[in-house]
Amino acid sequence: MDRSAEFARWKAQCLSKVDLSRKGSVDEDVVELVQLLNAREQFFTTSSCAGRILLLDGGINSFEVQKQNCCWLLVTHKPCVKDDVIIALRKANGDAILKFEPFVLHVQCRQLQDAQILHSVAIDSGFRNSGITVGKRGKTILAVRSTHGLEVPLSHKGKLMVTEEYIDFLLNIANQKMEENKKRIERFYNCLQHALERETDSKSHPKIKEKNNSSYTQKKNRSPEKAHGKCITEENVKELENEDDDDPEIIVNIFPDDY
Amino acid sequence: MDRSAEFARWKAQCLSKVDLSRKGSVDEDVVELVQLLNAREQFFTTSSCAGRILLLDGGINSFEVQKQNCCWLLVTHKPCVKDDVIIALRKANGDAILKFEPFVLHVQCRQLQDAQILHSVAIDSGFRNSGITVGKRGKTILAVRSTHGLEVPLSHKGKLMVTEEYIDFLLNIANQKMEENKKRIERFYNCLQHALERETDSKSHPKIKEKNNSSYTQKKNRSPEKAHGKCITEENVKELENEDDDDPEIIVNIFPDDY
Repeated sequence: MDRSAEFARWKAQCLSKVDLSRKGSVDEDVVELVQLLNAREQFFTTSSCAGRILLLDGGINSFEVQKQNCCWLLVTHKPCVKDDVIIALRKANGDAILKFEPFVLHVQCRQLQDAQILHSVAIDSGFRNSGITVGKRGKTILAVRSTHGLEVPLSHKGKLMVTEEYIDFLLNIANQKMEENKKRIERFYNCLQHALERETDSKSHPKIKEKNNSSYTQKKNRSPEKAHGKCITEENVKELENEDDDDPEIIVNIFPDDY
Repeated sequence: MDRSAEFARWKAQCLSKVDLSRKGSVDEDVVELVQLLNAREQFFTTSSCAGRILLLDGGINSFEVQKQNCCWLLVTHKPCVKDDVIIALRKANGDAILKFEPFVLHVQCRQLQDAQILHSVAIDSGFRNSGITVGKRGKTILAVRSTHGLEVPLSHKGKLMVTEEYIDFLLNIANQKMEENKKRIERFYNCLQHALERETDSKSHPKIKEKNNSSYTQKKNRSPEKAHGKCITEENVKELENEDDDDPEIIVNIFPDDY
């Protein structure tokens, strides 16, 4: 079976499967994005999470926290108020941890080139921990990842280690991250639409392919003012990103100019 | 210039450059690993951080924290005690955040195949957020990333929001993560050595290539008992990993059996 046919088979198989997530459905905030990708023959999504605030009750050593073992005291994809957490914490008897987990998306791509386009869209949209996986049989998956999390131990052996005031302060931060995460998903959606349009144009007008086939080209031409909710410059991404990789210790030579 | 020659040129250029990190040198705990990689013609490292505990003083809105703008109150690659943080916090006048940042490594690879081998080593060693970047000019970089962090807001507008007891509790967790991070770097080093040996063997004995050219093959044959400090089974990785991706919502179909 040729590569395209095999990919089409994988896609049909995957999209026909039952959603195995605890929630059992795609999160509201990413439905459009997932549909946009799955409507394209070169992509299909294998998993997604729009972003969520989680309260976990782990073992008495929080280091041992495992999603599959520990108890989920609270999970929400919407902003969260102190009382939700205070009430949920009453059920904690181990080491409870509050997490903000940003948007995560895994997309299987027909060819490496398709993954590269999606990867540059992800980077341009602020998802700077995104990366490609290429399996032995050539399965090519782009993981869209942000660095934009929060992980805060709250209790030890069931004893609350922080004040209610702190939980309130913490949730303000978590809710802000949730808001910014939503903006980034919009940015990713818009950036992806532009990239796919450019790709379609370049196929129908090969002459302008050179000019339009890279969101990197476009980045340099777009002014920050026009960037809101759109594909934006790397500089803006850095301004928006609570981003470890802005530390030169981490990014030396990672994205050279000619990348 | 052919691909190999161009890669050799990039490698020579990169390794001759001054280290631009704040520290100005490779972290002690990853020197051997970096040397092992740079001794191979198909790899060179472009950046690394062994893992560290960081205390940052951000803007009055912690969401705006940016490494390049904010003040580093404390950074250590060794376990940390409460008093270090308490003293450093006296200098905080914005929103101070304590972070544990795990091992990060970026390796430029001559070919996608080289990156795939390194990627499977990284996944087998517990670095499950690792991923490949392929640039327009074919520059192929593997980023080795863990999910194993900590990000805890401690003060707001210079006011400490937690108790000293909490900071002590938090540092115990951060120090445990530092320890586990070190073990994972060792595991990565050992797993990489085995993978590189297998690769060399398979080149000198093409007949056994099929049997030995994948750490995935090996994973299935290795018993957990033999795994300590070595390349380990995915199951062990999950046990060891404080791993968001163990949630089915996140990993559905990401690593199918035939991956």
